[in-house]
Amino acid sequence: MKTFVTIIALLAALPLHAVEGKWTPQQVLQLDAAWLKKQGLQLPPSRLWDGDRGTGLLAATINTGGCSGGFISAEGLFITNHHCLFGVLQEHATPENDIITNGFLARTKETELRSRTLRITIPHRFTDVTKEVLAAVPNGASDAERHRAIARKQEELVAACEKQAARRCLVAAHDGGVQYVLQETIELSDIRLVYAPPRAVGEYGGEVDNWMWPRHTGDFAIGRVYGADGKPYHPEFFFPISTAGAKKDDFVMVLGYPGITYRSLTANEMAERHLYFTRRATLYREWIDLLEANARGNAAAEIAVADNVKTLANRQKNAEGQLAGFKRGDILGKRRAADDAVLAFAKKNEAHRGALAAYDELAAMAKEQSTSFDRDFLLTHINVLPASLGQMGPKSLIFAATIARAANARAAAENEREPLFAARTIGRVRERMEREQKNYYEPADKALLASFVKHAKELPEGQHIAALDSITNIDQLYASTKLLDVNERMKMFDETAEQLHARHDPLVELGFALAGELRALNEKRDRWDGAISRLRPEWRRAVIAHAGKPVAPDANSTLRVSFAHVQGYEPRDGVFYTPFTTLGGAVDKHTNEEPFDMPDALLAAAKGHEETPLDFLADADTTGGNSGSPVVNGKGELVGVNFDRVWENVANDFGYMPDVNRNISVDVRYLLWMLRNVDHATELLKELGTK
Amino acid sequence: MKTFVTIIALLAALPLHAVEGKWTPQQVLQLDAAWLKKQGLQLPPSRLWDGDRGTGLLAATINTGGCSGGFISAEGLFITNHHCLFGVLQEHATPENDIITNGFLARTKETELRSRTLRITIPHRFTDVTKEVLAAVPNGASDAERHRAIARKQEELVAACEKQAARRCLVAAHDGGVQYVLQETIELSDIRLVYAPPRAVGEYGGEVDNWMWPRHTGDFAIGRVYGADGKPYHPEFFFPISTAGAKKDDFVMVLGYPGITYRSLTANEMAERHLYFTRRATLYREWIDLLEANARGNAAAEIAVADNVKTLANRQKNAEGQLAGFKRGDILGKRRAADDAVLAFAKKNEAHRGALAAYDELAAMAKEQSTSFDRDFLLTHINVLPASLGQMGPKSLIFAATIARAANARAAAENEREPLFAARTIGRVRERMEREQKNYYEPADKALLASFVKHAKELPEGQHIAALDSITNIDQLYASTKLLDVNERMKMFDETAEQLHARHDPLVELGFALAGELRALNEKRDRWDGAISRLRPEWRRAVIAHAGKPVAPDANSTLRVSFAHVQGYEPRDGVFYTPFTTLGGAVDKHTNEEPFDMPDALLAAAKGHEETPLDFLADADTTGGNSGSPVVNGKGELVGVNFDRVWENVANDFGYMPDVNRNISVDVRYLLWMLRNVDHATELLKELGTK
Repeated sequence: MKTFVTIIALLAALPLHAVEGKWTPQQVLQLDAAWLKKQGLQLPPSRLWDGDRGTGLLAATINTGGCSGGFISAEGLFITNHHCLFGVLQEHATPENDIITNGFLARTKETELRSRTLRITIPHRFTDVTKEVLAAVPNGASDAERHRAIARKQEELVAACEKQAARRCLVAAHDGGVQYVLQETIELSDIRLVYAPPRAVGEYGGEVDNWMWPRHTGDFAIGRVYGADGKPYHPEFFFPISTAGAKKDDFVMVLGYPGITYRSLTANEMAERHLYFTRRATLYREWIDLLEANARGNAAAEIAVADNVKTLANRQKNAEGQLAGFKRGDILGKRRAADDAVLAFAKKNEAHRGALAAYDELAAMAKEQSTSFDRDFLLTHINVLPASLGQMGPKSLIFAATIARAANARAAAENEREPLFAARTIGRVRERMEREQKNYYEPADKALLASFVKHAKELPEGQHIAALDSITNIDQLYASTKLLDVNERMKMFDETAEQLHARHDPLVELGFALAGELRALNEKRDRWDGAISRLRPEWRRAVIAHAGKPVAPDANSTLRVSFAHVQGYEPRDGVFYTPFTTLGGAVDKHTNEEPFDMPDALLAAAKGHEETPLDFLADADTTGGNSGSPVVNGKGELVGVNFDRVWENVANDFGYMPDVNRNISVDVRYLLWMLRNVDHATELLKELGTK
Repeated sequence: MKTFVTIIALLAALPLHAVEGKWTPQQVLQLDAAWLKKQGLQLPPSRLWDGDRGTGLLAATINTGGCSGGFISAEGLFITNHHCLFGVLQEHATPENDIITNGFLARTKETELRSRTLRITIPHRFTDVTKEVLAAVPNGASDAERHRAIARKQEELVAACEKQAARRCLVAAHDGGVQYVLQETIELSDIRLVYAPPRAVGEYGGEVDNWMWPRHTGDFAIGRVYGADGKPYHPEFFFPISTAGAKKDDFVMVLGYPGITYRSLTANEMAERHLYFTRRATLYREWIDLLEANARGNAAAEIAVADNVKTLANRQKNAEGQLAGFKRGDILGKRRAADDAVLAFAKKNEAHRGALAAYDELAAMAKEQSTSFDRDFLLTHINVLPASLGQMGPKSLIFAATIARAANARAAAENEREPLFAARTIGRVRERMEREQKNYYEPADKALLASFVKHAKELPEGQHIAALDSITNIDQLYASTKLLDVNERMKMFDETAEQLHARHDPLVELGFALAGELRALNEKRDRWDGAISRLRPEWRRAVIAHAGKPVAPDANSTLRVSFAHVQGYEPRDGVFYTPFTTLGGAVDKHTNEEPFDMPDALLAAAKGHEETPLDFLADADTTGGNSGSPVVNGKGELVGVNFDRVWENVANDFGYMPDVNRNISVDVRYLLWMLRNVDHATELLKELGTK
């Protein structure tokens, strides 16, 4: 009988099916508690999130500004990725004390390194404000007016919320506005670095291994949060360290702030968005080659273009991965089939009849977008944006258009200004105009402009950009402008349109023409956004009703949790990626050269410890923004820190593919091994509750 | 109780440990029959080999001249690799009937395609001739004399054996002479092609996938052997087709004629031989680059250098693999430890005391070899040899030295001639002198000579080659010689030394100087070979006694069998290679471009058959020459055809590494699927006993 039970146990130990969903805290309570238990959750769901109090263990997950992190001690220690605290290392590294290369350990609180810029937020309260937001839209508003009304209301709610001390607030729209949620967080700005491994550990494998398995990166770092009183912050919740770590098939939860995904798009919209990756893959390859060819052999030039080459290469590789994933996962085909099922459902259900018209209108909009796609795509590259799309075009055009837009904005009434150039944010734009000079190298920029103009001149009939068509002599353009001199440019930034025109600077004049194009583009986008806020919720309500169970909304940088299991996968026929790597594997990769250059002390310590787990795979549903996410077991103990997805899973932003959906985490046992065997960090280990 | 048995069965199904050994037929009978049964052999060992009759199922394994093959029907059908019968396809392909591209199937015996050149041999009788061979060595013979006496005796025995009709014979020395075995085989020369898949199937993956897993190559072809009477040959043994194929953990035997391995070398000799790969990896990379750079953009030149580039690239990749394997498997360290254990054993055992001196003398010889290593390595590249080392140096030098050696040989008494230039073989050398012109392209050859001379001039003090040091103006050398004109060269080949000298051709004069160097080199090697025939057996007898069980001798192109199991492996941390690939995986690799260009008919037929097994891994102990080896199950049924080893296993010629020792076979079920679903080869399938 006992044997029989053993066999059942063996069967039960087989990996469960991967589960789609970046769930909001509120949704955790809507999920079937028995199902969660079967998955491996050993806590009652109410421990994760208490609906009445609006908090729970999930609130131990912090936002470190683009990254996620998690509290791991009662005294405010938090863990995140090495690359998420890299800025703090940069702030404090000196040639004499090169903590970037050597790593850093504060053996006492007094020696922790305070960041001048890093802030973190802790979730405090979530309030459904859908009714208030929608009530702000006037009857008969156009789509553009609708967009502006919603944006204004969101700003109002945020402003009111932030009147409280140390609050940072945000109104998040789930799936285009199915729900608007006011996210109230506690913001703390006294953040100190406690531990970071040497760069060769934290970035082991570098670009070569980026998005790849097998992986051997020690991408972890520890900080401590202090309150306004200068004393360590005492979080209500934290994740105790599990010294046992996770093993194959174990249940894990990944908590964090995933940035943006596109799964709520209809098939027609996805097809249009697919174009982005096609264009990016080709254009960025061309630009990378141009930047590299023009800088080659000139050390200063190579440094100047390095940042942009890295960003372009990252996006280019991502685009290739998206395209491969779209094909491999037949994402469009599956989405169309899913759409069809919802359409059939909506046809039969009076309450969702409106979804049919919404679907058609979304399709018509996607079609409209596709007619000007190439034109808009090109212009986007000189549209200085805080988001990730901007900044990659020729800097001459970016500088020129931005100067003109700033002058135009200052001449307008505050509520008529382009949002980026509002009084509250224009300072950041100015700062960027100055900082960007370090990435400027004239021959490379000229080559980029030549490419940009060539593509502009190839635009289809009726889509041409007159200002760009007029460019004929690039050398002359650069020779005759003062805009590319940083001091002169910063003077220009503060001048009026009249003063600027009086300079008779041809590049500045080009900037004014482009500013008009960009304003028109951004206004068109406002109109589209307004339409989406009208149509998407209608459609998504039908999708949710058709599903008959909770559906997680697209990622939008708000707190989410994914329920997963540790497991490997088959990337291609004949190959299986096993779920754990080891320290021995990292040593095998060591070549003595970047990015596989392990410190000698670590190599020496690794002898006899080859089996130490290093990184691991799980089928958690993650995306960018989940960097630094705590990975916790069914008891809520920390077993790892998420830092990447695998190559075959890049396209999961558009559709969940259970067979290849894998995230990559660094194993907490590697961190503990480093602290014990390399850094001998006795005090820190004690605070972490381990021996 | 039943459940308990099930669990035991589960445990028993775990893969057994990989087993080193390319066993001779005689050795199969010395192995523990119970152990063989436990491995999975379901036949009595005497079915594999009958000691009294000197034959058995193993004799269904044929030698197709450099490749292996196996009978698969009572009517003389045999299977081997596509690349082993490629020559027959070449003989019969025409632009109108491009059977290389399209493949070939003879639907009746009448339409089979007879080869003009292919011969096969079938094992007939093995006789231990050790005593006779050794008795031929005169007392007090020098090592060089010993070498010549043994070679002469071997030739005598072969000549006597071949007096019988249709016999091809060979005296094989196992491990340098522990045993000399006369291998008597039946030679048949009426070989006809029955089936070959399209090249895109037989070479799927090409150079890209060469030595790699996962693999999707359909490297099989079928021929039929006819007797001198023009009737199908009726073999005594053949391997029936298993339609079930093999599955993970199954026992399989790989039978064939593995070419050459070096495991019987002592650690000191291996260290010296390791140098080959170091030098090859560097020099061949240099030469590949030179050939390619000089031919680039000139279509005729690219064709001329293609063959040599391919051979160099293959050897270069192999050298890299050997070096990586030496390091990964710590082959030298393990060999040294094994040597030490045998030395300790020999010290304690009177009977093997002689092994100690032999070991030291082998070490001294390895040291002597290493002093002239670089000089000898360089000269080897212009030493036209039938073996694989030759032919890769500048053709100008090869032609020059060969012309001179031929003239010298004809002037000498027959028993004083260099063996290659004996009356019996000089015709083949002449033929090659003519044929080689197609691979000659002057600018590339000049570049190769420049590299060759540069390396010669860099040789250490005392190792210089005067003839090469004297070369100063390469352009002039090529301009002033007639040797590179093929017609003139063939005239020269038949001239006497006096006639050649009278031409006052500087390159020909250089050839005479190099001929002297090569003669000295080859005489030195004869002396070393003689010493090895004295020392190696002494040492190996101690190794065998120390092992206390049968030890398989190094491969030497004689019939061997390896006992193995189907299983995957871990090529590196975090990755597991699963043991089977599928047709679906081949379709996934299809790019429409070589080497991944599946025929349309096959792509269409593959729909719904994605799970068809294609290639598989086992831990069989194989090497070059095992191409086309039948892979049979425990009942003696054919489950696959061996065609490659994996990259991590290239260095297994020097040491067996159980964790990565994997051979690659094509699954017989892929062949059957092709015959059924693509070729509809009803008659052939019937003859193979399948439906």
